[in-house]
Amino acid sequence: MTNSPVTPLLDQVPTPNELRKLKPEQLRQLSDELRAEMIDAVSTSGGHLGSGLGVVELTVALHYVFNTPEDRLVWDVGHQCYPHKIITGRRDRIRTLRQGGGLSGFTKRSESEYDPFGAAHSSTSISAALGFAMANKLSGKPGRGIAVIGDGAMSAGMAYEAMNNAAQAGNRLVVILNDNDMSIAPPVGGLSAYLARMVSSSEYLGLRSLASRAVKKMSRRMHDAIGKAEEYTRGMVTGGTLFEELGFYYVGPIDGHNLDHLVPVLENVRDTSEGPVLIHVVTTKGKGYAPAEESADKYHGVPKFNVVTGEKQKGSAGPPAYQNVFGDTLADLADSDKRICAITAAMPSGTGIDRFAKRHPERSFDVGIAEQHGVTFAAGLAAQGMRPFAAIYSTFLQRAYDQVVHDVAIQNLPVRFAIDRAGLVGADGSTHAGSFDITYLATLPNFVVMAAADEAELVHMTYTAVEHDEGPIAFRYPRGNGVGVPMPETPQKLEIGKGRIVRGDANKPAKVAILSLGARLEEAKKAADTLEAKGLSTTIADMRFAKPLDEDLIARLARSHEVVVTIEEGAIGGLGAHVLTFATDEGLTDAGLKIRTMRLPDIFIDQDSPEKQYDIAKLNAPHIVETVLKALKHNSASVEEARA
Amino acid sequence: MTNSPVTPLLDQVPTPNELRKLKPEQLRQLSDELRAEMIDAVSTSGGHLGSGLGVVELTVALHYVFNTPEDRLVWDVGHQCYPHKIITGRRDRIRTLRQGGGLSGFTKRSESEYDPFGAAHSSTSISAALGFAMANKLSGKPGRGIAVIGDGAMSAGMAYEAMNNAAQAGNRLVVILNDNDMSIAPPVGGLSAYLARMVSSSEYLGLRSLASRAVKKMSRRMHDAIGKAEEYTRGMVTGGTLFEELGFYYVGPIDGHNLDHLVPVLENVRDTSEGPVLIHVVTTKGKGYAPAEESADKYHGVPKFNVVTGEKQKGSAGPPAYQNVFGDTLADLADSDKRICAITAAMPSGTGIDRFAKRHPERSFDVGIAEQHGVTFAAGLAAQGMRPFAAIYSTFLQRAYDQVVHDVAIQNLPVRFAIDRAGLVGADGSTHAGSFDITYLATLPNFVVMAAADEAELVHMTYTAVEHDEGPIAFRYPRGNGVGVPMPETPQKLEIGKGRIVRGDANKPAKVAILSLGARLEEAKKAADTLEAKGLSTTIADMRFAKPLDEDLIARLARSHEVVVTIEEGAIGGLGAHVLTFATDEGLTDAGLKIRTMRLPDIFIDQDSPEKQYDIAKLNAPHIVETVLKALKHNSASVEEARA
Repeated sequence: MTNSPVTPLLDQVPTPNELRKLKPEQLRQLSDELRAEMIDAVSTSGGHLGSGLGVVELTVALHYVFNTPEDRLVWDVGHQCYPHKIITGRRDRIRTLRQGGGLSGFTKRSESEYDPFGAAHSSTSISAALGFAMANKLSGKPGRGIAVIGDGAMSAGMAYEAMNNAAQAGNRLVVILNDNDMSIAPPVGGLSAYLARMVSSSEYLGLRSLASRAVKKMSRRMHDAIGKAEEYTRGMVTGGTLFEELGFYYVGPIDGHNLDHLVPVLENVRDTSEGPVLIHVVTTKGKGYAPAEESADKYHGVPKFNVVTGEKQKGSAGPPAYQNVFGDTLADLADSDKRICAITAAMPSGTGIDRFAKRHPERSFDVGIAEQHGVTFAAGLAAQGMRPFAAIYSTFLQRAYDQVVHDVAIQNLPVRFAIDRAGLVGADGSTHAGSFDITYLATLPNFVVMAAADEAELVHMTYTAVEHDEGPIAFRYPRGNGVGVPMPETPQKLEIGKGRIVRGDANKPAKVAILSLGARLEEAKKAADTLEAKGLSTTIADMRFAKPLDEDLIARLARSHEVVVTIEEGAIGGLGAHVLTFATDEGLTDAGLKIRTMRLPDIFIDQDSPEKQYDIAKLNAPHIVETVLKALKHNSASVEEARA
Repeated sequence: MTNSPVTPLLDQVPTPNELRKLKPEQLRQLSDELRAEMIDAVSTSGGHLGSGLGVVELTVALHYVFNTPEDRLVWDVGHQCYPHKIITGRRDRIRTLRQGGGLSGFTKRSESEYDPFGAAHSSTSISAALGFAMANKLSGKPGRGIAVIGDGAMSAGMAYEAMNNAAQAGNRLVVILNDNDMSIAPPVGGLSAYLARMVSSSEYLGLRSLASRAVKKMSRRMHDAIGKAEEYTRGMVTGGTLFEELGFYYVGPIDGHNLDHLVPVLENVRDTSEGPVLIHVVTTKGKGYAPAEESADKYHGVPKFNVVTGEKQKGSAGPPAYQNVFGDTLADLADSDKRICAITAAMPSGTGIDRFAKRHPERSFDVGIAEQHGVTFAAGLAAQGMRPFAAIYSTFLQRAYDQVVHDVAIQNLPVRFAIDRAGLVGADGSTHAGSFDITYLATLPNFVVMAAADEAELVHMTYTAVEHDEGPIAFRYPRGNGVGVPMPETPQKLEIGKGRIVRGDANKPAKVAILSLGARLEEAKKAADTLEAKGLSTTIADMRFAKPLDEDLIARLARSHEVVVTIEEGAIGGLGAHVLTFATDEGLTDAGLKIRTMRLPDIFIDQDSPEKQYDIAKLNAPHIVETVLKALKHNSASVEEARA
């Protein structure tokens, strides 16, 4: 814990209204204080640091020049918005970032009128800003849409779709391309190379003259077609043709830390532009904090840390992280199987694909923030005999749902989906909670859907997926570390569609059967302990598969138990729905079978510790016990009575 | 019916092997015969005509120059593949196109080794071709990936994502941009304007010289960085910079109907290119068939027609198409409500938005093939107080699932989703069947999900959606015409989450209750007639809402009926799953309630008539009767016995 920084000017600027009363020459000091405040805040809360540090001056300049919140400022992804939060009335809560009941780590509509659009997934900002711009245009209200988007986020097709539609907004749309040559990992692909060429073609020292030229260009109104054509031609020389082709007026590149450049360029854009403008701003991720600037990932996401030394608080040593278990297992298997390929969408370390890539670089593909392409690319690889693994978080796979359906499921191609961040994820909150994948995948013909109960199961499922050439297969596992089970010497190939009895005997009559899918298994065991202490014999099955269901096991458990409870880390429509559908199809419930499904509730759950989130979701051991007891108590007679 | 065309040369070319034995000067005649054969075939089967006519020469040239099927030729969307099918061994079945048991109207892996990748949704081809290219590169096999993609399909972000990743494939990737300035409707956006500029900048008569220059360019190998830079600079002058920025070598524009240009350019690309190449080919949709060339939509999709006159077989007059009911209703409501906006993703007439656009052009947005952008753009409009309707087919909405979750559902923004093509769709087959939307939407918190039982209900649901400002709301309806019910004078606002009793009395004990969602209601009525003829009193509820459920109605029906059957035009996880989950949560089944869910089966159903498809799906009246009778017969005693 350090003393809070001294911030005399920032103390006078709770909101942009006060900011706009400052003189331009005061903005440098304000930015320095804002940066110090942000570093101090994140050192106590943990969170995203590098991105915010990179946009301190940009944040100040945008609020200074534009009339927020009437001008709608949309931060892409939103993890760079901490400085924005500090100067838009939330400084008093800035040390509660990402904590239960505290500020979200992203922009959020419910937090502030200065957050007109929430985010967390990338590349949505231009579309949203265009929506604001067009709504105001149609209803005759003032106010622009301003999107701030990183170069990594520009690799997503959605950003391109939005740019392709931008012309209609006229000067109500402003896009700031925040080019730091980094998203989370260094970006990939043709666009990145293109931006690098543009930036390098105008050496850093030349930025000043470029900026003043941009200012000059913007002052001149383009009032006829010839003028436009001239501008267009000029764009081809100064760079930015790619954006100009799509109908933008391109300005840049500008030094994003130099307020003497930023403020006048933004003012000119505000006052004189006629069409949508793209301002190419070059920033340094982690700017102004030496430990961040010197670190490979620029302190993208950090735990609590010591401000003076930059030393990060160590997590307690424990079982390995699921993503690393997956990455290492896949890399091991790929030593002997040359068909295994791995695909990540700009998340090499988050998915463990970095470990695979180190050992098998030629078979590792980071496609950028491009889940749609990544999945269909994997389908192409599979169609040509490879064994591709698309390692994509549960919520990000939503980006490629049609590709999953149209290119993989319908064609029955053996693409393997390694789905990390399944279930509730803690500090990242609802935008990152993997709640829907069981439902949206298990409804698809041809799909096999597994969930790992622990890190040893993940090893087996990875291997099972390698060996499954019959069609698509997915396996999901939680964010964070395993539960500490012994790791298997050799991965086993699981029988498709077969669960395992973890406790008790499927054929031996008992009071309670718990059908668990995924990592709630530990809670199911705790619940069984409690139930047995109450004299209620309990059988536990780890179903392993949401699809195909182990119908034989379910039927046997239904016959031999009084209450059957399913539990999963997913929303309605998953394991529980499939079990109920099977049970009713077969008439297993006709004569009265007490069956209950435990699942994520019908709400989005805000950031908190995972334990607390699962408590809110009522998916911890005490809730299992409660569900069982309530079901047992539920009197058949009273139901009969009610039906009469 | 006309006489089949005389095709002496085509008769000798059943597959590309024979094609490649022809002399180049024979290709013109072959193309003419192929075009005549295709026109004749489609005149008897109906189907997509204009797109195929536009690529006759390109099809011939590609198979002539490249070594298919080893070179993997991927047709984007696939509706232009009829000429391809004719010369890849399927001519004998070409008159069965889109019919039950016949050829698919799209490419399909199971049909031919010459269809390495199936399609139907747009913009997947570059990703798939890149997958083929990389798989071959990794495994040391010969064979390129060749994608043929239209300018409309290029407006999708997915195509951009793929281009951004193309450089790694080297010369194993060839992309043919088939620029006909039309996808289904005229394309929109910056890319389209860009292509138009390129084509117009080199007048049509200049194409020949451009083509020969391209040939010359390709012959020279680029073997050092300086050479590359020179090429790059040249690209900026000749056009194609947008593609060159992304790492492609750009060639074009080339006249796509001139085999003397096409063949040598393709040969040069085949023999000398080092990096991925984009060949810009300009074609005319409907080429070579006057009625098609002269028609506004270039005979994109046609019924059977008379080859000589071009006269199309008229459908029988009947109830209005659902899409038109929706479009007209929305346009009417928008007369008095200035907040209503409509968004379509390149499907103005398919969604009925063309009718809205005629009356409210300023509030109508065709975003191109860009569902991701379209949905988040709608979210931006909603956040700024508008009442946006995103009119997107069920399967295409899969393209924007993450935007639906992340931008709409989590933020609880009142975007209205008008979901056409819900359920089975007939000749378009499984890629267009709207099977999953109930499941993937009803699992999301905050969502309201409705399904229209008939065209009058669609009117009410459109109005209900207009008035629902509390959060996202979706309503689904089938492809094709309504059922002929009387149309309401005034749209009614439906109570959210409330069903209606269509037959019988929810509180009066009866034998059978059918809970219908959507347009199976007519089948439910027929089934009820049969059941009542057998002495089984039957109540029918039109649930209207999959979410929120009418829990009160379900509980009352469960208490007063012996068998409860749900039916919906969707896959597992929809209404049935939600009803079962509610019923078991509440213990309604504890004492024995015979409940059955009827839904789409766990298979993808090929093209056929919708009636036949629903027969395969077992969702017609006889199947309802059968399900009820089987459930009634299912002996509680036997279940008890089984459980013992």
